[in-house]
Amino acid sequence: MARPAAREAGAVTRRGSVIGIDLGGTKVAVGLVSRSGDVDAFESWPTAASDGVEAVIERLAALVRDTVGTARGDALEVVGVGLATPGIVDSITGTVRYATPALPGWTGLALGPRLADSTGISVIVHNDGHAAVAGEWAVGAAIDATDATVIVLGTGIGGGIIAEGRLVRGYLGGAGRIGHLSVEANGRHCWCGARGCIEQYASGSAVARDAQAAIDSGAFTSMRALGRPITAADVVQAARLGDAQAVTLLSEAGRHLGAALVSVVNVLSPQVLVIGGGLAEAGALLLDPAEAVLRERLPIPIRTSVEVRISSLGHRAAVAGVGLLAWERLST
Amino acid sequence: MARPAAREAGAVTRRGSVIGIDLGGTKVAVGLVSRSGDVDAFESWPTAASDGVEAVIERLAALVRDTVGTARGDALEVVGVGLATPGIVDSITGTVRYATPALPGWTGLALGPRLADSTGISVIVHNDGHAAVAGEWAVGAAIDATDATVIVLGTGIGGGIIAEGRLVRGYLGGAGRIGHLSVEANGRHCWCGARGCIEQYASGSAVARDAQAAIDSGAFTSMRALGRPITAADVVQAARLGDAQAVTLLSEAGRHLGAALVSVVNVLSPQVLVIGGGLAEAGALLLDPAEAVLRERLPIPIRTSVEVRISSLGHRAAVAGVGLLAWERLST
Repeated sequence: MARPAAREAGAVTRRGSVIGIDLGGTKVAVGLVSRSGDVDAFESWPTAASDGVEAVIERLAALVRDTVGTARGDALEVVGVGLATPGIVDSITGTVRYATPALPGWTGLALGPRLADSTGISVIVHNDGHAAVAGEWAVGAAIDATDATVIVLGTGIGGGIIAEGRLVRGYLGGAGRIGHLSVEANGRHCWCGARGCIEQYASGSAVARDAQAAIDSGAFTSMRALGRPITAADVVQAARLGDAQAVTLLSEAGRHLGAALVSVVNVLSPQVLVIGGGLAEAGALLLDPAEAVLRERLPIPIRTSVEVRISSLGHRAAVAGVGLLAWERLST
Repeated sequence: MARPAAREAGAVTRRGSVIGIDLGGTKVAVGLVSRSGDVDAFESWPTAASDGVEAVIERLAALVRDTVGTARGDALEVVGVGLATPGIVDSITGTVRYATPALPGWTGLALGPRLADSTGISVIVHNDGHAAVAGEWAVGAAIDATDATVIVLGTGIGGGIIAEGRLVRGYLGGAGRIGHLSVEANGRHCWCGARGCIEQYASGSAVARDAQAAIDSGAFTSMRALGRPITAADVVQAARLGDAQAVTLLSEAGRHLGAALVSVVNVLSPQVLVIGGGLAEAGALLLDPAEAVLRERLPIPIRTSVEVRISSLGHRAAVAGVGLLAWERLST
């Protein structure tokens, strides 16, 4: 892909937008994405995936129609829709080849064609990690890099890879499943069938589950007083307030993450490794232990050629990225 | 990179050659590589790396001069040299950024410029795994694939990645170090500083070391009678003759390899995964256990979109590949 010309040459942005949608298991985020990668009118709300596939698609279609209407009121042409979603997505056909537990039952769904049929607008679909790396590379934390890898620490762990300015989609769209890089051949069982996947140690849901297990086993921690199921945000909050158990949980997740990053660097050699997703808000509590493992385990010439950075686009990364990917496809 | 036009369109091959050299820690292999990727006059002999860097470079230069002379006798123009070697190679400058134990002391060496200076011929240098995947993708086991990953099970383990027809070099040439993908965060220590690297379980030297350890600990095996340090080839030979200990050693190496391949498939999603190098000669003794792990740990939609194949170019893969990479560079 190409970085937006407007940013590189100061050209005037075409008066039009793509609707960028990041459809996650928990939240749907939407924004108008300009050709230069700016995101306007960003909003998000619950996916309510438990209502079922049909209900979610109908709400997406209504959202697109509403957004087109609003944009028209602002004399803004909507030229297409870019939709990012977890799982393996064949971006050529717009089909979900393999869904994650975040959106169960979506395997085989012709998501792009379905949404295009019910809205009359062109829809391109990409995996959300691919969208995130496209955003961070084009207009975010990796804007100065040729080679970038993004790891998104959300409910699950997503990922995306750019090599010399090109999105590495993998055969049938399957690349970038970095959450299923294994750090322990005989480690924790993952829903995917493998063992020791980093998603089982350093995702938001893994950290929340480990915190709950610590409470249930009688650990001394302020989180016990919350009296409700613990979330990853609770753990981050408790750690910031000095709760030693919460600090330890994030540190252990960070060291596991570091072990995965060593393999990522050895296999892909990104110039910039971007850490995004909700758990990245833990900042140094998570990333200092991860960086320590990188320092221990990578030789100096390798360690010094990769920079680990926090996402600069945050929860807008996939919206911006899939918007830019849609612009690119619609322009060719 | 592009596959050779001659193979695709039946065009007449230009009357000229590149000298392809695969400089390993144990052996140097050389051949004349045509623009269509055919390898002629293939030969190999010991590297004798212990003679030191200067001696090895001087022998390489003499080899190039001799080969040019012989080619001239056959009315064949030598248009350049492609040199493949282990370690991280910056192919832009022809410098070894980070050497492996196979060629100790080569870090920082301006290998390409040195050889070009002493021969008067253009020299391009690539990592040997990158060269191998270029060969297998262009004219070998992955000739029908868009996305291919090669894993070379030699003294160490090398690797190379092609994504949608382009070599993934990584920032400063560092991609494809698949031997240092970790399968056990607290596993065996590796010379690189990391732990649990697959090179410590499924390389030729790891299998030989494990066999020696089994003998030393009193295991019942025909390999004991060899009365000399065990090689990986000895283990393969013993296993073929039914030695249960040797079969077990290859099976354990294969299961570790399988665990690494699960991560490779999840991160890169190659259409074809090519297994090369000396230990690949173990065939089903190694690959059946590896495939069993893939079947256990990859969901069906992912498992069915990747094929594992044995290298079709064998020990000529890197010579063919680096020759083709040199042709490509010299043509642009």
